[in-house]
Amino acid sequence: MLLYNSAVSGNCYKVRLLAAQLGVRLELHELSVVDRSDRPEVIGDLNPALRVPTLVLDDGRGLPESNAILWYLGDGSDYVPTDRYERAQVLQWQFFEQYQHEPAIAVARFLLAYSGEAEKHAERIEREVRNGYAVLDIMERYLENRAFFVGERYSIADITLYAYTHVAHEGGFDLGGYPAISAWLDRVAARPGHVTIDA
Amino acid sequence: MLLYNSAVSGNCYKVRLLAAQLGVRLELHELSVVDRSDRPEVIGDLNPALRVPTLVLDDGRGLPESNAILWYLGDGSDYVPTDRYERAQVLQWQFFEQYQHEPAIAVARFLLAYSGEAEKHAERIEREVRNGYAVLDIMERYLENRAFFVGERYSIADITLYAYTHVAHEGGFDLGGYPAISAWLDRVAARPGHVTIDA
Repeated sequence: MLLYNSAVSGNCYKVRLLAAQLGVRLELHELSVVDRSDRPEVIGDLNPALRVPTLVLDDGRGLPESNAILWYLGDGSDYVPTDRYERAQVLQWQFFEQYQHEPAIAVARFLLAYSGEAEKHAERIEREVRNGYAVLDIMERYLENRAFFVGERYSIADITLYAYTHVAHEGGFDLGGYPAISAWLDRVAARPGHVTIDA
Repeated sequence: MLLYNSAVSGNCYKVRLLAAQLGVRLELHELSVVDRSDRPEVIGDLNPALRVPTLVLDDGRGLPESNAILWYLGDGSDYVPTDRYERAQVLQWQFFEQYQHEPAIAVARFLLAYSGEAEKHAERIEREVRNGYAVLDIMERYLENRAFFVGERYSIADITLYAYTHVAHEGGFDLGGYPAISAWLDRVAARPGHVTIDA
């Protein structure tokens, strides 16, 4: 399978991480997350929203949205629970991530570290850092008595939330006050087959 | 089952609509979407993000996030496909909805029609209306040669996108230039067991 990818995108990293743990080989095609002018031509027929990651199946069909790709690749493996309630809990945390976590923490990181115009966006960065700490507070409380997000086992819910949390420092976040999150990050990084975002 | 609900929230309406079509009875507990001060006390143990909808199963376990609840209630029924790729496509459109559609169209609608302080938020409303039209453009192109979003059959993907699209006019959107969306809205409203948002 082919993955339209960005090396710095946490959303793309989710897919590369699960694929590595599943032993699935992906051919990567790099797209810029700054200059997006070529996207209609390159992925317009595969992803109406023109974002990466976009997976292309061997028969040519496209599949966008990082968390949808995790389900496509992972369902039926050890990384997706079989219990009906636990499957819904995986989705709960994935929708939380796309609605509340990514728009704050990933956006602060992008504007600060990758946009090339951090000063211009200073006010927005400040707002997203504030929103991002509220998200980290929710995760910290939840992880205080848990090893992983769902069913006490590593799953795609952890991959989803790990992607931008483990690089939150690039967005100006200090995880010093978050011991439960920090211990969970270590547990995720210690899983068999783990690969880093810059692997 | 019990649903912590808001009568005006499109996210809550998704759950009520699917439950009606499945013949599942829900006991509704109304929470305000304006004064949220009672939420930690009422749903803090059920939903770390303190949002509605939050479903409470008969055994007391909580399940938040509208689209996760649709999967919990609907998987195994005619409203969720069985094919692996089509299931991922349902998720694709649901993540698109929570990442791009809801934050623009639902937020514009809330600030304009329900916040009680539309004038204070005029600039934000203008920005979200601009973002919302970009989302409607994507949906219009996609629906030009399709009856429903996934597999040419009504599914929870349609319920997800219908919820805020069919009340977009309350956010200041004019669907006059969107014939494919308008025809799709009519098709969804004509499905057996359909209930309106104010039913």
